[in-house]
Amino acid sequence: MKEVTGGVCAVRGVRAYGIKEGKNGLAVITGSGTSSGVFTRNKIIAAPLVVTREHLKSQQISAIIANSGCANAFTGEQGLSDATSMAAIVADRLGVRTGSIAPASTGVIGVPLDMEWIEDQIDSVIAGLSDTADGSTAAARSIMTTDIYPKEFAVELSSGVRIGGIAKGSGMISPNMATMLAFIYTDAAIPYGMLNSCLKRAVNRSFNMIVVDGDTSTNDMVLLTATAEMKVGTPDEPGLSEPEFQEGLDCVCTELAKMIVRDGEGAERFIVARVTGAKTDGDAKKAAKAIVTSPLVKTAVHGEDPNWGRVIAAAGYSGADLDPGRISLAISGVTVVDRGRIVDGAVVDMSGTDIEIVVDLGPGACEAVAWGCDLTCEYVRINAEYTS
Amino acid sequence: MKEVTGGVCAVRGVRAYGIKEGKNGLAVITGSGTSSGVFTRNKIIAAPLVVTREHLKSQQISAIIANSGCANAFTGEQGLSDATSMAAIVADRLGVRTGSIAPASTGVIGVPLDMEWIEDQIDSVIAGLSDTADGSTAAARSIMTTDIYPKEFAVELSSGVRIGGIAKGSGMISPNMATMLAFIYTDAAIPYGMLNSCLKRAVNRSFNMIVVDGDTSTNDMVLLTATAEMKVGTPDEPGLSEPEFQEGLDCVCTELAKMIVRDGEGAERFIVARVTGAKTDGDAKKAAKAIVTSPLVKTAVHGEDPNWGRVIAAAGYSGADLDPGRISLAISGVTVVDRGRIVDGAVVDMSGTDIEIVVDLGPGACEAVAWGCDLTCEYVRINAEYTS
Repeated sequence: MKEVTGGVCAVRGVRAYGIKEGKNGLAVITGSGTSSGVFTRNKIIAAPLVVTREHLKSQQISAIIANSGCANAFTGEQGLSDATSMAAIVADRLGVRTGSIAPASTGVIGVPLDMEWIEDQIDSVIAGLSDTADGSTAAARSIMTTDIYPKEFAVELSSGVRIGGIAKGSGMISPNMATMLAFIYTDAAIPYGMLNSCLKRAVNRSFNMIVVDGDTSTNDMVLLTATAEMKVGTPDEPGLSEPEFQEGLDCVCTELAKMIVRDGEGAERFIVARVTGAKTDGDAKKAAKAIVTSPLVKTAVHGEDPNWGRVIAAAGYSGADLDPGRISLAISGVTVVDRGRIVDGAVVDMSGTDIEIVVDLGPGACEAVAWGCDLTCEYVRINAEYTS
Repeated sequence: MKEVTGGVCAVRGVRAYGIKEGKNGLAVITGSGTSSGVFTRNKIIAAPLVVTREHLKSQQISAIIANSGCANAFTGEQGLSDATSMAAIVADRLGVRTGSIAPASTGVIGVPLDMEWIEDQIDSVIAGLSDTADGSTAAARSIMTTDIYPKEFAVELSSGVRIGGIAKGSGMISPNMATMLAFIYTDAAIPYGMLNSCLKRAVNRSFNMIVVDGDTSTNDMVLLTATAEMKVGTPDEPGLSEPEFQEGLDCVCTELAKMIVRDGEGAERFIVARVTGAKTDGDAKKAAKAIVTSPLVKTAVHGEDPNWGRVIAAAGYSGADLDPGRISLAISGVTVVDRGRIVDGAVVDMSGTDIEIVVDLGPGACEAVAWGCDLTCEYVRINAEYTS
């Protein structure tokens, strides 16, 4: 497996483009194939997610249309009608069924979509569709809200199969904005069942393990489409095992997820929390996520303070089973607690931008990794000063 | 029921005193009687809590000794030995059993108690013990860490019974410090079973419904002792019903809990989240706590931004059952969402220091209230700049 350039357009059969005008943006990605999606668990679900979930029942999509600036969330019947119209507008231009289009939105909650603006822009976006790296970057850029940079990543597996994606996200909910979006493509020919189970596994290990502020958006969505331009993956031309595909997909999802955290609102430092010695995978995940969610751990990292009591306390209240007499903790490679005992004279250097926290809970053999960022005054400023 | 002055010393049979010297403080409260306690759910439990829980098995205590500056948490065998020594030092002076003393600590995690300092101060504290309001205030002041003001509250029920308490707390974990402590007394003669069940109910409605930063301390403890100086409450002299006592205890716990939030680290505004229309009490609590925990709601309140989409999103991810088509939301008395519909032209004034958020989830008849504070740069500064 090797990294390749081109983002979503690294994948054969995919074209993309997008434009940004002030706070509004519009992207289209084309690429037909078997498709699976993962959606927010928030009980308030944005209209485009309801429509896309419905369209995905056919397990096939031919294009994605995504806008930034308005989340089209908590917008009632009008919102559902607008999301369907977004799909219809693209379907009309591409000559495909409306039911094969996946609409997505990110932005302010509770205001209606500006359908007129979308109608005005759609032809320019369609005209710009390209299978080059520039196309992917334009699409990635157009869906940004408080994001500082566009997020793209792609790999090529040894079989030649490519997996590439773009994502956006900066707060779980950014300033009155919603969301994390990721659109991923592969040119392998992957049957729906495998596509779906690989995506769920990859999302659980990547996007579900990042925390900026602990708020879960109304608009989170990850879509994966297999264009089948490469025949490998089929029973006739195997050449691609499920573990190999899973590894590639995990890599793309994890890299995109880490980009979101590095670009977290106001973030200056990147935190990796690795938990080992847990009794169950669930315990390992709970503890790792509690550490990167804790405002006290996040402010300690911001202040370059190796305040390990806060990490131990976060693991303690996470709900994970642990043994205080066997817990160990290392920060940036320096062990500060060794099987329940405080290491005298341990000196931790926290001046770098990447801080690794490793906690061994003691009782088991399960592991998990979570990624987060520090909590800064800039986060407070961004989210306090934004006026709805 | 009416409010009375004197804090913990408003209760007949209670004496208190405390001293503060730099970051260290020491308080003693005497008052024998039936006693019940509620402790942190963090799996890392501080040594004094382990000792106090053990001593409470007799359902009787004669005094509390509490220090600030050191949490005596994650301190191993030495910590347990020190906590027992704290109890023994007071027991010796008062001529009672060590097993009838409840030790408590608050401060930095992972460093041993300065037993020498405690030994040096104990006689001055014992000598200062007083049943006046000054005694209560001295004790409340001596257990402060990042708290800005001491926290005391007392009521007198129509039967003449008094309930009074002191508390400390500013972050769930303050700068590398742990904790929320509350010591409550009543002069009623209350049997253990009723005392215990009333305390659990009161704590669930008060201390368990406040959020500063969402971090759960290793040292949280609430103790309630009935000195029985008033004979009411006994089978012979009833005069005090369980509902009347519960109401008084709820009031004292709630007022102390609200003082902790108002004194939250860096807090400038006080948030009340009232959730109605929930299917279960648990759902109502989940939604109310999610709202006062959300960094995005907290920063919106800080920025005086009636950013109601964040409140709806927090209720949505809280896990509570809700009906998006029937949800209603009012901020500071102004309805912004009415049964699923956005109210056009609603103008919310958020310039006050107390912000009330009322959410009706729709499907049920259960309610809950949670209290929180805004998230400010000062919170980040306090917790980033503290050097362990």
